[in-house]
Amino acid sequence: MKPNDAPVAPKVPARDRLIEAASALFAEKGFGSVSVREICKAAGTSINMVHHYFGSKDGLRDAIFERYDQNVYVVPMRLLQNPAASAEDLAARLLLVFETTLEACLAERAVLMVVLREQAELDTLQAFQARFVSFLEEAKAAGYVRQDLDCAMISGAMLDRILSQAQFAPWMLKTAGIDVQNDTEYRRRWCAANLDLFLNGIVPRD
Amino acid sequence: MKPNDAPVAPKVPARDRLIEAASALFAEKGFGSVSVREICKAAGTSINMVHHYFGSKDGLRDAIFERYDQNVYVVPMRLLQNPAASAEDLAARLLLVFETTLEACLAERAVLMVVLREQAELDTLQAFQARFVSFLEEAKAAGYVRQDLDCAMISGAMLDRILSQAQFAPWMLKTAGIDVQNDTEYRRRWCAANLDLFLNGIVPRD
Repeated sequence: MKPNDAPVAPKVPARDRLIEAASALFAEKGFGSVSVREICKAAGTSINMVHHYFGSKDGLRDAIFERYDQNVYVVPMRLLQNPAASAEDLAARLLLVFETTLEACLAERAVLMVVLREQAELDTLQAFQARFVSFLEEAKAAGYVRQDLDCAMISGAMLDRILSQAQFAPWMLKTAGIDVQNDTEYRRRWCAANLDLFLNGIVPRD
Repeated sequence: MKPNDAPVAPKVPARDRLIEAASALFAEKGFGSVSVREICKAAGTSINMVHHYFGSKDGLRDAIFERYDQNVYVVPMRLLQNPAASAEDLAARLLLVFETTLEACLAERAVLMVVLREQAELDTLQAFQARFVSFLEEAKAAGYVRQDLDCAMISGAMLDRILSQAQFAPWMLKTAGIDVQNDTEYRRRWCAANLDLFLNGIVPRD
């Protein structure tokens, strides 16, 4: 089947158009307030297409969450796959986690808002959080992380910071005039400063 | 005027009943999907009461945000009002900020969800964030904070962590079995561990 019979954006497959349109509508109105009819109209597909590709509106939502989970968390997961080989390697990889995850969250911001609202359970995210704790525990065993750090209690510390930047991007623009989405220099400085906080804390080293 | 003519919870003034009912409905369905009629029905008041007390649905929402802003951010603001007198005073006050703000956010969780969704602009929150940066800058001048800390870029670091715990309390319960709302021992350990991360970072001191 070649699903290119729609009037809007005919080059994009109907499945992708449905995901795109539904993501935007869920983000704007909330999952519960959007009808399948509305989604199909926005996607320029017939109503059968949702049932054909996703079974139901719930199935469409799950496909959106699954794609988000893959797009955002597979790379950070891979970055922490092997134990840190040195203190420098630890810092370099955590900086990459900050940078790539923030970029991915900003690129997927519409879906992120739905994920947050629906408190979605995401397999890769949860695997990443578990891996993050193991990565720190391994680094602790190797002496690159403080022995008295309570790793389990800080598993979300980097991610909270990143998700919050993406979630509040419009708020930052209206309250502080900072354009998180487009200001790459701000993002670079933000990632560096927050990695520094995460690595070294606020208290002077003496 | 004695607004106790309602069938539901007649001891609570109508204004408070409206705030309570609207907060719950906005949290559940989103601000845009809730009608004034629905709010008044849930609050057990006549429809005129919203206009009497708040002017409009927008006015009711603003009153809810204002109350949240006061209930959550006035105390942390006060805790950081004066410069830290010592490294110990800095740590003690930041721990109190963690603990009291987390408690307040959990107590106000329904409204917090509306605040996050609507990206509300809150005066006390914004004043707190500015004060937080000044507090760190003053502590830097006094030698209690690292000279190379980029204070402006980390102004949200503690708050992100706290807001995220409150926001994801149901998610933590379903994915990890951790009952943030009721497990005071977990919260105590969480606040201590995150203060430790914030103060000392993950890298060993040598």
